[in-house]
Amino acid sequence: MSITPPPRGFPVSEFETRTAKAQARMADAGLSALLVLTEPEVRYFTGFLTPFWQSPTRPWFVVIPATGKPVAVIPTIGAECMARTWLDDIRTWPAPVPQDEGVSLLAETLKELTAGRGNIGLPMGPETSLRMSLNDFERLKDIIAPLQFRDASPIIRALRMVKSELEIDKTRHICQLLSGVFEDLPRHLSLGMTEIDIFRTFKTRTLAAGADDIAFLVGGLGEGGPADIISPPSDRRSREGDVLILDTGAVFDGYYCDFDRNYAFGDTTGAAKQAYQVVYQATEAGLAAARPGATCADLFHAMQRVMDAGGAMGNDVGRLGHGLGMQLTEWPSNTATDMTVLEPGMIMTLEPGMTFAEGKVMVHEENIVIRDGTPELLSRRAPAELPVIG
Amino acid sequence: MSITPPPRGFPVSEFETRTAKAQARMADAGLSALLVLTEPEVRYFTGFLTPFWQSPTRPWFVVIPATGKPVAVIPTIGAECMARTWLDDIRTWPAPVPQDEGVSLLAETLKELTAGRGNIGLPMGPETSLRMSLNDFERLKDIIAPLQFRDASPIIRALRMVKSELEIDKTRHICQLLSGVFEDLPRHLSLGMTEIDIFRTFKTRTLAAGADDIAFLVGGLGEGGPADIISPPSDRRSREGDVLILDTGAVFDGYYCDFDRNYAFGDTTGAAKQAYQVVYQATEAGLAAARPGATCADLFHAMQRVMDAGGAMGNDVGRLGHGLGMQLTEWPSNTATDMTVLEPGMIMTLEPGMTFAEGKVMVHEENIVIRDGTPELLSRRAPAELPVIG
Repeated sequence: MSITPPPRGFPVSEFETRTAKAQARMADAGLSALLVLTEPEVRYFTGFLTPFWQSPTRPWFVVIPATGKPVAVIPTIGAECMARTWLDDIRTWPAPVPQDEGVSLLAETLKELTAGRGNIGLPMGPETSLRMSLNDFERLKDIIAPLQFRDASPIIRALRMVKSELEIDKTRHICQLLSGVFEDLPRHLSLGMTEIDIFRTFKTRTLAAGADDIAFLVGGLGEGGPADIISPPSDRRSREGDVLILDTGAVFDGYYCDFDRNYAFGDTTGAAKQAYQVVYQATEAGLAAARPGATCADLFHAMQRVMDAGGAMGNDVGRLGHGLGMQLTEWPSNTATDMTVLEPGMIMTLEPGMTFAEGKVMVHEENIVIRDGTPELLSRRAPAELPVIG
Repeated sequence: MSITPPPRGFPVSEFETRTAKAQARMADAGLSALLVLTEPEVRYFTGFLTPFWQSPTRPWFVVIPATGKPVAVIPTIGAECMARTWLDDIRTWPAPVPQDEGVSLLAETLKELTAGRGNIGLPMGPETSLRMSLNDFERLKDIIAPLQFRDASPIIRALRMVKSELEIDKTRHICQLLSGVFEDLPRHLSLGMTEIDIFRTFKTRTLAAGADDIAFLVGGLGEGGPADIISPPSDRRSREGDVLILDTGAVFDGYYCDFDRNYAFGDTTGAAKQAYQVVYQATEAGLAAARPGATCADLFHAMQRVMDAGGAMGNDVGRLGHGLGMQLTEWPSNTATDMTVLEPGMIMTLEPGMTFAEGKVMVHEENIVIRDGTPELLSRRAPAELPVIG
């Protein structure tokens, strides 16, 4: 398999566009600055890409002023890497310094960039978190008063939800790589392999195919169907009649795929084969419903209707798919109550799943991008019948 | 290479001990409950291990009451996996439900377990973060009043800093696996490979050696020494005279190693070879200083003294090593001001690093456990001279 990868990184125009869009929304919301401090948010506005976020020691801050480029307030260890982005104004402190972990430098920067006026946006809504200590956050609020923080999650969410073509190229690439890995996998698996062996084989094949990382891999074996899809792999060996599910979030240049595939070891139960066909058809219904103007709730109902008719006994996942991009899962969610309207450029997963027998689940997943008219499949469609190993 | 891995997971007694120690400290601090919500903290008290934390959608909560087992308040998708831990009381909500993302269920649980009295511990100090939305946290505070949150980071830090022998076994295992990968690596690298090729080869060898994951890999090539150690790999090809640094956090059963190795492609500069020897000797000084009763500042000064004498021009990393265990980096830090006293059972990295020429850095790292007397090396000692490829 030889797939030409898209170029790494983005032209500066991509970041200029993102920043200008944020600034337009900030103006509408009366925000004189926007503060972001999580990995995807910092990367979205700067292009700063590093696995160094694995270390929880140091906070990282990026401030988007009302006009002009974002300003980075970061630990010295990141200065060299940040200097390669499009940013000009990079302010550092020699972290770790727990007594003042960037707080006073950030406070000065916020005061300067806002001239001490207005409110500062900060993501505070669903699916966000605060990647600095609560004690430091309270101190920061005290120092910057009378400046106050206001929830900016609607701004970030609206921006990130609709992807550019350059972002879609990266997601398509990793989806295509993983489609190949999944299609090829039966040749590399055999009866008697443990879950740990299977996961290792999958990861090795994924690296060989050209993925940068396998940030996420869950699944496992179950007689006639797996019981649970978020546990780590065990020493359990595959046996005749098992169903294997693998659900992966592999990464190319910081962009994720997120889809799964199911396999039977030898002959499995009729119930499992039947459940496979039901969720396959539910995915077809989701593909048919995925049009601009439809809501996530429409997607949910289109898929759930097929599963209800096919004997679904519930779903512990809580949703039938979600947004996808710089993170394994992004806003919005395909639930009965999510009224987010689909727009061209949104990358979504369709993930119908159901309990089809006591303690047995079947989940399918594909990755798509909403287009005018029919959606574009980023992953190659799963086989219509449960594939068999051995 | 054939290394027998230690058993996966822990006996229940491990979690009973951790919980009892926390409860003793909670009683001293006047806390009627302790709330944790990040991956390592939840895992520390429950054994709950899953890569599902990659998805930011759902918060997860574990409450440690004043007596008895921890109580989980988690999304339904995690119920099956959490039921395999030692916990009995698992309360779920069908996340995602952004209107009430577990907040009211958690509030009820906190009120019940504290009988509405006392303060609730929550990690709020250095190196912690709040893995739930600020809006939901504010709502939670309102609902549970007059119960209040108090900073519990000193409790969590003191507990997690000193490892059990079973934890040390896991870290030793991954350190030994990676020592083998690093020692073997020159046979698999050659002149002309790109950084991306080198990273992929390293990851593949690490999986083949028996690691579960490569959660962290940074480094790169530089003529006569790398410029920066946190950037992702590029298409830059290795050339005669380059120095390669690879710094990895690979994982076995949820426990990390964190160390690096340096290699020269062919003949490199005398300055690079000299710098290698300086940081090698700084590591020796760190090993000699790593005794119970010494402080992290003592470790810092022992290593920094050697580097100052050897021509160090500064250090952008901000510290010369740190704690290690369930996370790539943990409290404490080897800085001039960290007065944490070393105790037997603490796993530490010794990480002397310095800029030795304009834009060129040299960093060494080893992983050790503090013992009565001399420390135990968990990683196998780096070669005393800069190893050469090709």
